[in-house]
Amino acid sequence: MKNEIRIFSPATVANVACGFDVLGFCLDSQGDEMVIRKTKEKGIKITYIEGYDLPYETDKNVAGVAALAMYENAKPDCGFEIEIYKRIKPGSGIGSSAASAVGSVFGMNELLGKPYNKTQLTYFAMKGEALASKSEHADNLAPAIFGGFTLVKSTLPLDILQIPTPTELYATIIHPQIEIKTSEAREILPKNIPLKDAIAQWANVGSLVHALHISDYKLIHRSLQDIIVEPYRKQLIPHFDDVKFSAMEAGALGCAISGSGPSIFTLNKGIEIAKNVKDAMSLIYSKTNIDFDIHISKINTQGIKIIN
Amino acid sequence: MKNEIRIFSPATVANVACGFDVLGFCLDSQGDEMVIRKTKEKGIKITYIEGYDLPYETDKNVAGVAALAMYENAKPDCGFEIEIYKRIKPGSGIGSSAASAVGSVFGMNELLGKPYNKTQLTYFAMKGEALASKSEHADNLAPAIFGGFTLVKSTLPLDILQIPTPTELYATIIHPQIEIKTSEAREILPKNIPLKDAIAQWANVGSLVHALHISDYKLIHRSLQDIIVEPYRKQLIPHFDDVKFSAMEAGALGCAISGSGPSIFTLNKGIEIAKNVKDAMSLIYSKTNIDFDIHISKINTQGIKIIN
Repeated sequence: MKNEIRIFSPATVANVACGFDVLGFCLDSQGDEMVIRKTKEKGIKITYIEGYDLPYETDKNVAGVAALAMYENAKPDCGFEIEIYKRIKPGSGIGSSAASAVGSVFGMNELLGKPYNKTQLTYFAMKGEALASKSEHADNLAPAIFGGFTLVKSTLPLDILQIPTPTELYATIIHPQIEIKTSEAREILPKNIPLKDAIAQWANVGSLVHALHISDYKLIHRSLQDIIVEPYRKQLIPHFDDVKFSAMEAGALGCAISGSGPSIFTLNKGIEIAKNVKDAMSLIYSKTNIDFDIHISKINTQGIKIIN
Repeated sequence: MKNEIRIFSPATVANVACGFDVLGFCLDSQGDEMVIRKTKEKGIKITYIEGYDLPYETDKNVAGVAALAMYENAKPDCGFEIEIYKRIKPGSGIGSSAASAVGSVFGMNELLGKPYNKTQLTYFAMKGEALASKSEHADNLAPAIFGGFTLVKSTLPLDILQIPTPTELYATIIHPQIEIKTSEAREILPKNIPLKDAIAQWANVGSLVHALHISDYKLIHRSLQDIIVEPYRKQLIPHFDDVKFSAMEAGALGCAISGSGPSIFTLNKGIEIAKNVKDAMSLIYSKTNIDFDIHISKINTQGIKIIN
């Protein structure tokens, strides 16, 4: 058995317009790299961090906390060192903390001979995610671990479903370089919502799941609507309406806030439309003084993986 | 082309636990029969009603109003007579008015050479349904016309999806002979609901649609939950909790109010469990002074049909 592996831990899009807190999908274009190494000395140590300024203390680092949760359960006769090559900017809204949390537990599980299944890995990773977002949720973790589209049916008990991915789907994700605190994005939401809006939203969740099963792109388009969360959160993202309008004009199937933002994602049928959408979205922020990154990504149906 | 047809217009279950106002499925065991006849004389006439005391005036009868909506659109060079052999008790919560509305427009469409598709038929039938329930909705109409499980993604524009039906599913439906007014069942519901409950509900809608696609009976079981509507409406149905408890103990996959009640449905894997559930549910009402009907039904994947 190997003593060291290098992994690619992907970025993810949570909520997917209609599926606030339950739906997510996995990206190919962006992700962290991490090295996990078995050591004789017991315990979990973070030995190297590159890319962003994150804490080395195991119990203050998302990857460390997730690793500790699993380590305390597994009680292995060894320890682990973690190196983090952080490529996903923290706070960008594409599952940066989830990638860290998932990376350590996936890597350790591989080095221990896979004692845990993917749902169990998600459970441990939730402990790390909770450090970043103050609540245990799995809507970024699940797609990072399982790949493709996932539906977190419940977190207690943890119940994760894998929804099929139509082959021609491409995502375009733009990250305007502004800061939104997850806590602020949470607080802006109402505690109660109109029943009639909830009905429209669960109709869209049901139809999106159906559309993904039968690869009906027009139905994906009709389902990618968020009347509950977007009206509140879009206020936190300058030019959101313009970006969305231009993306839809360019042929996107749907456009919505990724996670709690500020990233904005689209889903598109085919790479050509994804490129047109990329140009259209870029044009909006190019006219402002807001810096941005933009990526096109195939939906990553594999999820987190070992690399060389 | 025939001048007269006899049709079977099936009973249906709306809401299906988690899918309030959007999901429904079609029954085999109960339904109205109707005869639709072409006449030289123009206009729509209801010439015979058997079973229940319903108005003969076309514009006061659900089947008549639906027929008129289609007739005014089609402007055919003939008229129609409608005979109604009402078998589904009005107010039972299994789509009695929907069956009437669907029957007339389906029958007329057949006799005219099928100028309309199923969604268009649903649109006309909604006009009849509105007479009965004071609002245009399609959650009973859609399964009656399309068969199987349906999801009404929206009513404006009308967008109906057919969800696959796992082959081993059987419904048991008990109808306690009490009266619930649809208006009362509507008024008892809150205008606003907690966001966290809505999230749980749309997770269940998504997972039920997924479960129906992959014939995962255990997931159907886990998805058939209604935390939004049932807590309010069950107060209108004596012994609901006992019936549900006994049905679940007997092996039902799920048990909930059919439409706005008072009928209660279960879904079950296989006819044997459906029979056990029937016995268990019957036992509860047998101990009371409330009369009841109870039926076992395969899910009717064909929907409304011509009979001899």
